[in-house]
Amino acid sequence: MGETLHTTNPLRDPADRRLPRIPEPCALVIFGVTGDLAKKKLIPAVYDLANRGLLPASFVIVGFARRDWGDETFEEMAREAAKSHARTPWREEVWARLAGSFKFVPGTFDDDEAFNRLDATVDELRETHGIVGNAAFYFSIPPLAFPQVLKQLKRTGMSDNRQDGGGWRRVVVEKPFGEDRASAAELNHLVDEVFTANDVFRIDHYLGKETVQNIFALRFANAMFEPIWNSNYVDHVQITMAEDVGIGSRAGFYDDNGAARDVLQNHVLQLLAIAAMEQPNGFEAEEIRTEKLKVLRAIKLHDDLEATAIRGQYADGWVQGRPVKGYLAEDNIPQTSTTETYAAVQLGIQNRRWNGVPFYLRTGKRLPKRVTEIAVVFKEAPHMPFADYDTKTLGHNQLVIRVQPDEGITVKFGSKVPGTGMELRDISMGFGYGETFTESSPEAYERLILDVLLGDKTLFPDAQEVDASWAVVDPLEEFWEGTKPEPYESGTWGPQGADLMLQSSGRRWRRA
Amino acid sequence: MGETLHTTNPLRDPADRRLPRIPEPCALVIFGVTGDLAKKKLIPAVYDLANRGLLPASFVIVGFARRDWGDETFEEMAREAAKSHARTPWREEVWARLAGSFKFVPGTFDDDEAFNRLDATVDELRETHGIVGNAAFYFSIPPLAFPQVLKQLKRTGMSDNRQDGGGWRRVVVEKPFGEDRASAAELNHLVDEVFTANDVFRIDHYLGKETVQNIFALRFANAMFEPIWNSNYVDHVQITMAEDVGIGSRAGFYDDNGAARDVLQNHVLQLLAIAAMEQPNGFEAEEIRTEKLKVLRAIKLHDDLEATAIRGQYADGWVQGRPVKGYLAEDNIPQTSTTETYAAVQLGIQNRRWNGVPFYLRTGKRLPKRVTEIAVVFKEAPHMPFADYDTKTLGHNQLVIRVQPDEGITVKFGSKVPGTGMELRDISMGFGYGETFTESSPEAYERLILDVLLGDKTLFPDAQEVDASWAVVDPLEEFWEGTKPEPYESGTWGPQGADLMLQSSGRRWRRA
Repeated sequence: MGETLHTTNPLRDPADRRLPRIPEPCALVIFGVTGDLAKKKLIPAVYDLANRGLLPASFVIVGFARRDWGDETFEEMAREAAKSHARTPWREEVWARLAGSFKFVPGTFDDDEAFNRLDATVDELRETHGIVGNAAFYFSIPPLAFPQVLKQLKRTGMSDNRQDGGGWRRVVVEKPFGEDRASAAELNHLVDEVFTANDVFRIDHYLGKETVQNIFALRFANAMFEPIWNSNYVDHVQITMAEDVGIGSRAGFYDDNGAARDVLQNHVLQLLAIAAMEQPNGFEAEEIRTEKLKVLRAIKLHDDLEATAIRGQYADGWVQGRPVKGYLAEDNIPQTSTTETYAAVQLGIQNRRWNGVPFYLRTGKRLPKRVTEIAVVFKEAPHMPFADYDTKTLGHNQLVIRVQPDEGITVKFGSKVPGTGMELRDISMGFGYGETFTESSPEAYERLILDVLLGDKTLFPDAQEVDASWAVVDPLEEFWEGTKPEPYESGTWGPQGADLMLQSSGRRWRRA
Repeated sequence: MGETLHTTNPLRDPADRRLPRIPEPCALVIFGVTGDLAKKKLIPAVYDLANRGLLPASFVIVGFARRDWGDETFEEMAREAAKSHARTPWREEVWARLAGSFKFVPGTFDDDEAFNRLDATVDELRETHGIVGNAAFYFSIPPLAFPQVLKQLKRTGMSDNRQDGGGWRRVVVEKPFGEDRASAAELNHLVDEVFTANDVFRIDHYLGKETVQNIFALRFANAMFEPIWNSNYVDHVQITMAEDVGIGSRAGFYDDNGAARDVLQNHVLQLLAIAAMEQPNGFEAEEIRTEKLKVLRAIKLHDDLEATAIRGQYADGWVQGRPVKGYLAEDNIPQTSTTETYAAVQLGIQNRRWNGVPFYLRTGKRLPKRVTEIAVVFKEAPHMPFADYDTKTLGHNQLVIRVQPDEGITVKFGSKVPGTGMELRDISMGFGYGETFTESSPEAYERLILDVLLGDKTLFPDAQEVDASWAVVDPLEEFWEGTKPEPYESGTWGPQGADLMLQSSGRRWRRA
């Protein structure tokens, strides 16, 4: 209970640090600014940041796309996008502050002229907007276009960090980060030739979610959970990312990739890394990255992939009360497609903490509902001093981190049922962000764009993590090559093989 | 995860055991049946048991008191009492089943004739009600009268277990169990001369509460809590039994005893025993008693009683928005009284599990509200990888068992506050009996009377536990002898000394 001795820099007033951090004057250059991601997520997130007072006074969004727009058309589009999709309330005076900060450069990625104009535009901001050369380039474009844009940034010198008069240059890349270990390495190599590793921000928007960041808080700011967060007490861990929707308008991309590449390789393995990692020395990017990487590299697939690497493809069925068609009947999907829309896999983590604890991961489309969660399922109490008939309905204790929707935490444990006798029953207690905090949660993109502008890489997976994740997924893809995924009825919890995987050891999936 | 091998008696079908246990035909003989306890608790509890179908078809209540009542007057009184104070809804058909089962024997405790009539009455029940001689004698009378009634029961032979034709005889004693170790031993000796130890039921109605029984479930039916339930993780434990009321009409009794004898010696130490005990082999009375006794005998007071044994006496003040008078201004309290209405004490438990963990107990009248709870306060997380300014409002993790009112469990822990940055704040999650279960909780007396009639002693402290509890309280009383309790304003959380006791080690009481 004694006082802790803090050794801090006396010149740095800790109270100051509680003030929100505001980025330096800068430009956000968005490639593919007319696309869905920009309209629904990026531009609304910028408005929300402005509304919360987290943008610098000098801030410009530069759009680059094929359309023949001027700055005003772009600004009008941006205004509509922000009005429709922003999280925070619409306020004209906030927008007024952003007005005049929209620049549009029309062009295609093979158009040298256009990139020269872009370069000039960014340079002019020094004088027109007092921006000293800071710029983040956001790749909201298909991966196929990455090499070309990178080449243009290098050719024009736009990617170079400016030593003269300051000015950083950063790049933001959306997943997919390659389609296997080799292609990811190639992509990383390409990016590394143009930007220094420290200036590359790979977006995995799951890491921007409050609930995911709260895993750090839950585990490391508390005394109660970490002592039981290991193989002595944990029976197994289930990580679920279920969607009720189908593939929507992503047929082309999706059919080339499938559930494992689209979701398992990134979101799900990142959730696993954060839930399973050792405590970092501190909360700096490098320290967290080190621990996540250790976990990812300690992952080992089960020897029997037949029984522990299950994939499925949705057939027709009913979801949320409406009939839906099967994957093979979706527009632009070949009748013969063997792409999986569901993947479940059992793996182990070969370190002292997790030895012998199976991690079950699953993701799929057209499941009964949209839910992402991490469930830590504990072993049964060693010897219960109660009569068998009093405990027969009792399950395992569970601690569930509800990532989305209905963000929060649930703890499931056994309690006495009121009445004569000692009948025990599982009950739940929990906390929800919505009920607990008056502060509403920022959107993931809000947080992540701000971090890019601040140069804070804590919530961005680095190239080695991407590599380690592909090292897990590649053998799965190889094993599945040439096989057909097991069909499952839309609106059910996936193929039977996934249930059998757990049943073989007496376990079962949560019906989340 | 493998199947557990159960070695059970094949002749005993476990499914049968889930049926409610019903006592054998019997009589409940209540001494002092015209008093408050009988009217407000005992008779209503009997009605509730009847309503729940938990009484045998042959069941008789025999009242014994000074009034000149007949059976019918007694039955009318009982009906009114049940109607006014029962927990379950009033149903005429339930009462109709009890009708004709009320016998009243008028008399004083020194009246041999009256006890002879009582003996004859109980005997007659064999023929009139098919009761084979089973009778429980409930002492709802002042402790001073115990010896006389015991003597009468012995003289008439009513206390003897009947070998001929069956028939058990049990006695139920309400606290106080003596006023110190010596008088308790004397009382136990007296009772032992008349009843066999196994037939003596000491009522501590706190043990009949669902929330108290649920401590067994919470600790031993779950895997999550027991691993952190020890000195490695627990900083200290606080047990609070606060009342907002004053002494009411109990002036005479209360002024002779005070808070430590009235509450600390029994309710609070029993809560401590259950919260701190080792896991029993099973859930039989003897097994639980053994563990509770071990804890009680391992209690050690602090060497510095001046700083760790605090008592107070309420002065006038405001409680729940109304002015109330001080203890010394209460009716029938001498102006010079040095009786405490508040007691707080720090003690340790000298065993491997709890070495070095202070247990802080407190009880008092005229505090801001009525609340009984056990709060397990955990140590701080060892090294938090967050900035100091992000964790500065963070308290210790707590697990709080809310015994009454608002029965349930609360877990307090740190969570990330939504927003940019990693600010941490304490939040709570909990479960409440009211919201969780459709079954409503039986009253403590319902449960305990049923257990007496069933002969189940699990929830009754035995003579050795009473002795071990007095061994804790006697030195306190001795230390306080001749001193004056510290006055505290009614409606506050007690005397300053109690706050200082915790402050000296950087801790503080929960403002429950």
